[in-house]
Amino acid sequence: MAQKVLIVYAHQSAGSFNAAAKDAAVEVLTAQGCQVEVSDLYAMKFKPSATADDITGQVKDAEHFCYGEETMLAWKEGRLSADITEEQRKLSDADVVIFQFPMYWFTVPAIMKGWIDRVLTKGFAYTSEERYSQGILKEKKAMLSFTTGSLESMFSVNGINGDINVTLWPLQNGILHYCGFKVLAPQIFWAPRVSSEVRCSMLEAWRTRLQGLLGEMPLSFTPSDSFDSERGFQLKKSIEEKQKSEHHGLTVGTHLGMCIPPNSQIKAGV
Amino acid sequence: MAQKVLIVYAHQSAGSFNAAAKDAAVEVLTAQGCQVEVSDLYAMKFKPSATADDITGQVKDAEHFCYGEETMLAWKEGRLSADITEEQRKLSDADVVIFQFPMYWFTVPAIMKGWIDRVLTKGFAYTSEERYSQGILKEKKAMLSFTTGSLESMFSVNGINGDINVTLWPLQNGILHYCGFKVLAPQIFWAPRVSSEVRCSMLEAWRTRLQGLLGEMPLSFTPSDSFDSERGFQLKKSIEEKQKSEHHGLTVGTHLGMCIPPNSQIKAGV
Repeated sequence: MAQKVLIVYAHQSAGSFNAAAKDAAVEVLTAQGCQVEVSDLYAMKFKPSATADDITGQVKDAEHFCYGEETMLAWKEGRLSADITEEQRKLSDADVVIFQFPMYWFTVPAIMKGWIDRVLTKGFAYTSEERYSQGILKEKKAMLSFTTGSLESMFSVNGINGDINVTLWPLQNGILHYCGFKVLAPQIFWAPRVSSEVRCSMLEAWRTRLQGLLGEMPLSFTPSDSFDSERGFQLKKSIEEKQKSEHHGLTVGTHLGMCIPPNSQIKAGV
Repeated sequence: MAQKVLIVYAHQSAGSFNAAAKDAAVEVLTAQGCQVEVSDLYAMKFKPSATADDITGQVKDAEHFCYGEETMLAWKEGRLSADITEEQRKLSDADVVIFQFPMYWFTVPAIMKGWIDRVLTKGFAYTSEERYSQGILKEKKAMLSFTTGSLESMFSVNGINGDINVTLWPLQNGILHYCGFKVLAPQIFWAPRVSSEVRCSMLEAWRTRLQGLLGEMPLSFTPSDSFDSERGFQLKKSIEEKQKSEHHGLTVGTHLGMCIPPNSQIKAGV
């Protein structure tokens, strides 16, 4: 079966490095026999704001409008707006999702945050019971591919921006893994506004990685059933005790007051 | 001198808990003699997407449009769009900025990310030389005040969402501190969709805090001059050596491979 890939892409300019990275992914994956779809958010003038307009027909409680509850209900009843429904169709079809963007303020640009806020509807992407390793999208893979103006040294454990693994945790654990995605290691393009030679070599490395991307091992996260729902989703005591004999905590977030495992958000098998 | 407060507020409904928290801030701070302005982003239909429309007149390089560079130039020349200019006027006037929002996907909603992406223009809010503790907005204070559907236990060091201090680091260090803001401890309303009694007591605690908010000590971050620009903004060796005799790393991000300091992103003086 041909793998289907969705690229959610956010850059304003077709002449950008992000555009070149997106084009490389389309080309290399298509050449492997993948079916690749691209959501070019700026070109689509994708609406980022989560509003009542995302629901067709009556909302349930206009006075105490709660976006999450209202859109879950609208999704169940097939009353989400056409643009959301179309993105959900693309996402349902996809085996792999690549988010391609320039990092703005340590995270995704607003237009991409809007895609996340509006498309990953409760009920469609997760429920309170089906999240993290039990997330509804657990048969799919996802990854971040982004540029940053920062040097790699700035995002190190002794750098001014702090460890990149900390910055990636809310995105990769709190969004991707939360919905169940197997998370592939991020592709990080450091300070790409450099010479065209460096740009070319970075793109070449990306093309090489793309050749084997679909066979890569995902990053490690803690299975949902390691947490005790009766105790407010804290780690089960037996697992916590076992981890205490290790040098590191379990993950960047569930670190148990111990050192965080090095590079677990940027390398598989850590 | 009366203190000026800007509340950047993102909720769709005037009947929400976030609206009540915003209203409490307006009321208590006004009663103290503050001048309070509110940017009600959904009511304003604030545009979140960073596009060439944010620039009046010609862009410098349409083919290789770089939002950061183009808006810095437009800011210098007074050619940013009217909505950005008006928010920058409010921000310039303010001594304190409160961001009031429901947490969506471990961070701010897209509409508020749009305010951050578009209003905190390079040149206006920071430059490569004037950032972090030297940031252009260093005479101002800022804080996050937000609701989350999660329980506090879920955001603990052994919780399924991971330590809240990790989730807050990119927001508080990477956005607020980056621009120079002194960052006041966040106000976190855990799982507010509870009984009206609990809602009332949470609001009452917020009103009490607001009485003394302007006198609070900010959170601690590492001064910019602790990092060596000649070595890619890594921590100066002397400071790193000194820290190695401590039990914890310096901050959540600049943790040096050591345990992260507990609760440094939610309590002052840690």
